[in-house]
Amino acid sequence: MKIVVLKFGGTSVGSTIRIKKVAEIIASYIKKKYKVIVASSAMSGITNDLVKKAKEISNDFLADEYDVLVSAGEQMSCSLIAGRLNHLGYKSRSWLGWQIPILTSGAHSASRIQKINKKNIISYLKSGGIPIVAGFQGINSQNRITTIGRGGTDASAIMLAKFFNAEKCIIYTDVDGVYTTDPKTISKARKIKIISYEEMLEMASLGAKVMQPHSIQDARLNRVNIDVRSSFIKSSGTLITKRKNISNNKIIRGVSFTKNDAKVTLIGVKDKPGIAAAIFEPLYKNSINVDMVVQNISSNGKETDLTFTIKSEDLYKTERLLKKNKKISFRKIIVDNKVSKVSIVGVGMVTTPGVTYRMFNALAKKNINIIVISTSEIKISVLVNRKNINKAVSALHKEFNLEN
Amino acid sequence: MKIVVLKFGGTSVGSTIRIKKVAEIIASYIKKKYKVIVASSAMSGITNDLVKKAKEISNDFLADEYDVLVSAGEQMSCSLIAGRLNHLGYKSRSWLGWQIPILTSGAHSASRIQKINKKNIISYLKSGGIPIVAGFQGINSQNRITTIGRGGTDASAIMLAKFFNAEKCIIYTDVDGVYTTDPKTISKARKIKIISYEEMLEMASLGAKVMQPHSIQDARLNRVNIDVRSSFIKSSGTLITKRKNISNNKIIRGVSFTKNDAKVTLIGVKDKPGIAAAIFEPLYKNSINVDMVVQNISSNGKETDLTFTIKSEDLYKTERLLKKNKKISFRKIIVDNKVSKVSIVGVGMVTTPGVTYRMFNALAKKNINIIVISTSEIKISVLVNRKNINKAVSALHKEFNLEN
Repeated sequence: MKIVVLKFGGTSVGSTIRIKKVAEIIASYIKKKYKVIVASSAMSGITNDLVKKAKEISNDFLADEYDVLVSAGEQMSCSLIAGRLNHLGYKSRSWLGWQIPILTSGAHSASRIQKINKKNIISYLKSGGIPIVAGFQGINSQNRITTIGRGGTDASAIMLAKFFNAEKCIIYTDVDGVYTTDPKTISKARKIKIISYEEMLEMASLGAKVMQPHSIQDARLNRVNIDVRSSFIKSSGTLITKRKNISNNKIIRGVSFTKNDAKVTLIGVKDKPGIAAAIFEPLYKNSINVDMVVQNISSNGKETDLTFTIKSEDLYKTERLLKKNKKISFRKIIVDNKVSKVSIVGVGMVTTPGVTYRMFNALAKKNINIIVISTSEIKISVLVNRKNINKAVSALHKEFNLEN
Repeated sequence: MKIVVLKFGGTSVGSTIRIKKVAEIIASYIKKKYKVIVASSAMSGITNDLVKKAKEISNDFLADEYDVLVSAGEQMSCSLIAGRLNHLGYKSRSWLGWQIPILTSGAHSASRIQKINKKNIISYLKSGGIPIVAGFQGINSQNRITTIGRGGTDASAIMLAKFFNAEKCIIYTDVDGVYTTDPKTISKARKIKIISYEEMLEMASLGAKVMQPHSIQDARLNRVNIDVRSSFIKSSGTLITKRKNISNNKIIRGVSFTKNDAKVTLIGVKDKPGIAAAIFEPLYKNSINVDMVVQNISSNGKETDLTFTIKSEDLYKTERLLKKNKKISFRKIIVDNKVSKVSIVGVGMVTTPGVTYRMFNALAKKNINIIVISTSEIKISVLVNRKNINKAVSALHKEFNLEN
């Protein structure tokens, strides 16, 4: 069977008008002789409303029942999609997690799909039916409803594609793909036709609207090719696949950036083994995510300067935690809440010398000062003054020929 | 086990504030050492919203999927109630139709409960848990969600009470019981403490807000005593039970009435066998409900006058159907859209002579003309001019000592 898995996100099924549109999209694959398995999210707004109700009931709402509550959202959207397909003359029905079943493990609200029973769906596909699978949900060994903690309905779609060995897994959403950089900021941004999982993961700041990093990682681990496209406009999307499937590897795939960073520098830190752990442990315990870290070599071997970046909104809490941290001593703390990170991402840079030089040179030519540098195998990030961010992104986008 | 089944209707769980109140009511039974099984409706408004969405999707929405859609409503309310009970320190969980399971037969959206598997719930009750059962839903032999066509969550509660041999089945609603007549119209109306199924069925016009006739019939057939009370105010309700359980049988239990009747009289109908059927068949086929029927004996054996009542809103359609009915002939049609039916109901009247006389006399004393009379074993109904209805109800309410 030539199977395609289609996933529709919350905005794609956000109204009955949208659901009618989605039914047409599904029908178009049937006309192309595909066997279609659909995974749907809840209509946008529904889940938030249910979560609000749970909060009103208890500030510590039981996770077991939370899953029962929110999973009702996908139940509704799936029945509406199936209802519309029947209206159009197609055989279709909703399949809830317990009906397939989709077996999960792990805690409530944080479950992962372990197994999808294929028998019922295969037999339904063979009968000519279009199964509309409720995303985000499964059941555990106690026959209770669970929800998928990471990736939600994206994870459901990826696992469906894996278990049914689907030819394609298409994620329909409200953006039409991944761009070389943010099109709202840089008008010359171009849609990326094909991108590797690794690049996509590093482009997270741009791709977050497209797919959560967890789901990209899931797709990578399960070798599922993901086609991201819009359910709102008809256009080709972006294919996320493994490196080997990409022939025309550009050196740089895209330029990503964040806007809400803050920089913290500790001057004259007493340098001793375990000092970095002593600094970062309380931040980690308070859910503060530390991004770039640079430690200068201490000249006298006794003191060091340490710089790191965090999200702007965590700055106040971070300063407080550092100052009351009895395990460390430093002379001075300098903070800067007006910095941004810009990164170039591309698997091609591993095999291409001079990428770093070209990046720094392009920024220098625009008189943009680099505050901190951090590199990985397929990404180089620099911290710049926030006022320079658009200029920096433009310069790099042009330097690495992403405009055409 | 001393089991009580508590049913909460849509308005009773209509908001998270109401659900908190419902959790307190449930807890009060636990404190009285009852094992409690709860059956809940969807939050008021939710089902209507889902039905509206189904209509937007298709004017002929597939019944299978309609059941999947609307059953999500009870799933939500049950998880919220269970969540609140846990918040208060009680062990509680939602039980959906498929988890028990509640097995139904019959068509989608019109299913009836055939069997409730007791094992899971009994074991949960024994563990000290409070099961919150999703009302209105079950599954069929194909493992698909079904909804109960007649009585909805009332039917679920009644069947739970039957299968678990509950000591009590309490229907919590937004009215506090059944009254001797409409308290909004007659200030001297009194709450009825105990009423037989049969009387309750005949009081349908008053009791409709309390319970649907279908559910009363279900309760009667399954010998389940129903206690109807309010979840909004603390007061005793009305017990609906079998005649034999009622010791102080009053002659008359209540005075019911309708306001929107219309009377149709056909003068000079050609009297021949099957004429009544010929008159009423087209009405029946057009879903027009004929209530009281009186046929005068024809003096010459060739013609007769026929009078019947229908709902006011059906009058225009009825006239049209009668006039174009080729199977009948009559000289004249007289209609009156300003009539009302008033009925006295009570199992005691069977064994008490003179009830009819007392009724007619009480009305005569108030100069109220009786247009049509119709009687059953436990009910006498008369048609009066609508302007006399309040006066008629008051007179009968007083005549049969219902004020105290």
